[in-house]
Amino acid sequence: MEDTIAAIGPLDETAMAAARALQARLTKPAGSLGALEDLSIRLAGLAGTCPPPLPEPAAVAVFAGDHGVHAQGVTPWPQEVTAQMVANFLAGGAVVNAFARQTGATVTVVDVGVRHGPLTPRETPHEPATGVPAGPGAPRLVTANVRSGTRDMTVEPALTGAEVRRAVEVGIRVAGELCDAGAGILVTGDMGIGNTTPAAALVAVFTGADPAEVTGRGTGVDDVTYARKIEVIRRALARHRPDPADPLGVLAAVGGLEHAALVGFILGGAARRVPVLLDGVNAVAAALAAVALAPDAVHALVAGHRSAEPGARAGLLRLGLSPVIDLGLRLGEGTGALLAFPVVAAAVRVLHEVATFDSAGVAEK
Amino acid sequence: MEDTIAAIGPLDETAMAAARALQARLTKPAGSLGALEDLSIRLAGLAGTCPPPLPEPAAVAVFAGDHGVHAQGVTPWPQEVTAQMVANFLAGGAVVNAFARQTGATVTVVDVGVRHGPLTPRETPHEPATGVPAGPGAPRLVTANVRSGTRDMTVEPALTGAEVRRAVEVGIRVAGELCDAGAGILVTGDMGIGNTTPAAALVAVFTGADPAEVTGRGTGVDDVTYARKIEVIRRALARHRPDPADPLGVLAAVGGLEHAALVGFILGGAARRVPVLLDGVNAVAAALAAVALAPDAVHALVAGHRSAEPGARAGLLRLGLSPVIDLGLRLGEGTGALLAFPVVAAAVRVLHEVATFDSAGVAEK
Repeated sequence: MEDTIAAIGPLDETAMAAARALQARLTKPAGSLGALEDLSIRLAGLAGTCPPPLPEPAAVAVFAGDHGVHAQGVTPWPQEVTAQMVANFLAGGAVVNAFARQTGATVTVVDVGVRHGPLTPRETPHEPATGVPAGPGAPRLVTANVRSGTRDMTVEPALTGAEVRRAVEVGIRVAGELCDAGAGILVTGDMGIGNTTPAAALVAVFTGADPAEVTGRGTGVDDVTYARKIEVIRRALARHRPDPADPLGVLAAVGGLEHAALVGFILGGAARRVPVLLDGVNAVAAALAAVALAPDAVHALVAGHRSAEPGARAGLLRLGLSPVIDLGLRLGEGTGALLAFPVVAAAVRVLHEVATFDSAGVAEK
Repeated sequence: MEDTIAAIGPLDETAMAAARALQARLTKPAGSLGALEDLSIRLAGLAGTCPPPLPEPAAVAVFAGDHGVHAQGVTPWPQEVTAQMVANFLAGGAVVNAFARQTGATVTVVDVGVRHGPLTPRETPHEPATGVPAGPGAPRLVTANVRSGTRDMTVEPALTGAEVRRAVEVGIRVAGELCDAGAGILVTGDMGIGNTTPAAALVAVFTGADPAEVTGRGTGVDDVTYARKIEVIRRALARHRPDPADPLGVLAAVGGLEHAALVGFILGGAARRVPVLLDGVNAVAAALAAVALAPDAVHALVAGHRSAEPGARAGLLRLGLSPVIDLGLRLGEGTGALLAFPVVAAAVRVLHEVATFDSAGVAEK
């Protein structure tokens, strides 16, 4: 982890200046691609070259874990749904699989902390209703279970320091393997029944916001459960008083194994100077921790979408990131980020493929 | 045109009910795909079947025309840039080409009213800087020039009624040909130096807004030109007093040939029950006219993005459409709409490919 953090550096100003100058020569009115121009310039700075590599293909890693705080009744979903959804991912039947097929992304499912097991792909792959083939690159399972779910953070720290570190290392390793396999952009995914509770706790700690401001309804809990969720987070924060200057300590106190792994995944991407496309509130919570560990990691982050979860919005504001997509999604799995991927790729493609006024013989104003 | 309008009908409520019921059984929390769920249900209603066909591949048609009102100094760009950009589209060097390659869309360029000619592809196709191949499906030119640009609307009607009708028929024909060739979704594109002036005039007529509220800076004009642009629109509207109840008359008075062709393109898609993805202010202006001619045409429309042009925003509000993408683009060509295409396709793909709770063996809450 220390080596990875040490490898994370600032944006390359020379490459950014070159991208800015190139944008001004392309056959389009200056500034007419709006936020995509800024994004392309930043990605040139990340890569240290103009144009930066096309961020293709995308690789989504879905980190799955369970949560001891489930015992406090923060969600109506049974805990075994985490494992059942992992099986669904591996069979190709979840929304993240459909979106990955749409965008040509690979899907890697990482069991970093699922409670129920053993995790095996279903014998029969999911057969789409209308016979659309799963295509090449079937989902892959990485078994890296650090612990069979976290402890109940209202009673004791969710994780030990050693467990946090092992989960972070899992994320770093997965990021490295996906980059080695040719991924041009890493996409964060998560699965864990109850995980919007630790995510909101993490966002509250790193932004300083009151839990009521950054806690959402997750899968859509009722008023009673929602009030309980906020109270549970308050109780955990009061018990542990986590210090935002000690990000690993915060993760141990109130985090999840998928959050810790996502921290490593983000750090791993940033160290490789590969962009990391963030999904919703779980990814944003992890990003806050990653940036607390390595401030320059923020340069690698692209906010895929603005989740309906208030913690995601608050976290993105704190990170200074504007989302690509804003359609009220609140599913997780990496789905919102995958929708943003073609837009990010298009922004970079402009720098590769669009003619200049000179080369195309187009008059300027 | 009359036959096309007569073929446009309401949404199929049975298919929509089936899509709504299917969304509720898929392995995700109810409502967690936000606006994508509503979109998938509407597209089922448009197709009259659940799931509706995957809206693939996308076909963008870039309707190009010139504008007599250019003489009034509404833009700093020389008029010949329209023809030069047509050549750039055909050589594959424009942003619309890059975005089409990103999203697997075909590009058809339609000369419906370019002033400078003859329009021929450049002898040497654009060579992307980094050697990315143009791929299959090189851009295609349709020559259907109704008139060598419009007349100056501040002096006389921009078009005759017969010219409007011919341009509308061009759009209907192109829509039909693209559907026959297998397009699953039609994407509006436009090119015409000065065309945000007639677009703003059209939006002002159909929304009843003051020209100052719906006129934008187009390619980025300075304050003096911007004030002149509003004054030019006021002058044209005062001269012709176009009646929004007579959409063809409005198009003749203050429209462009690409706007009239886009009206036909939209009607043609709606008549075939194929979704039409709208780009920016020129597409929105045409959509207002199309819906004035055939109110049920609105069901086929998907707002690709919210352009930075105020007329686009006002028009989308009037049409009751929420944009998929909102990134401050103001380029035209179909670029904003193409960015939205993978999102629209993903929304439909969910209905085809995602497992149900029963089929995946996932417990419900």
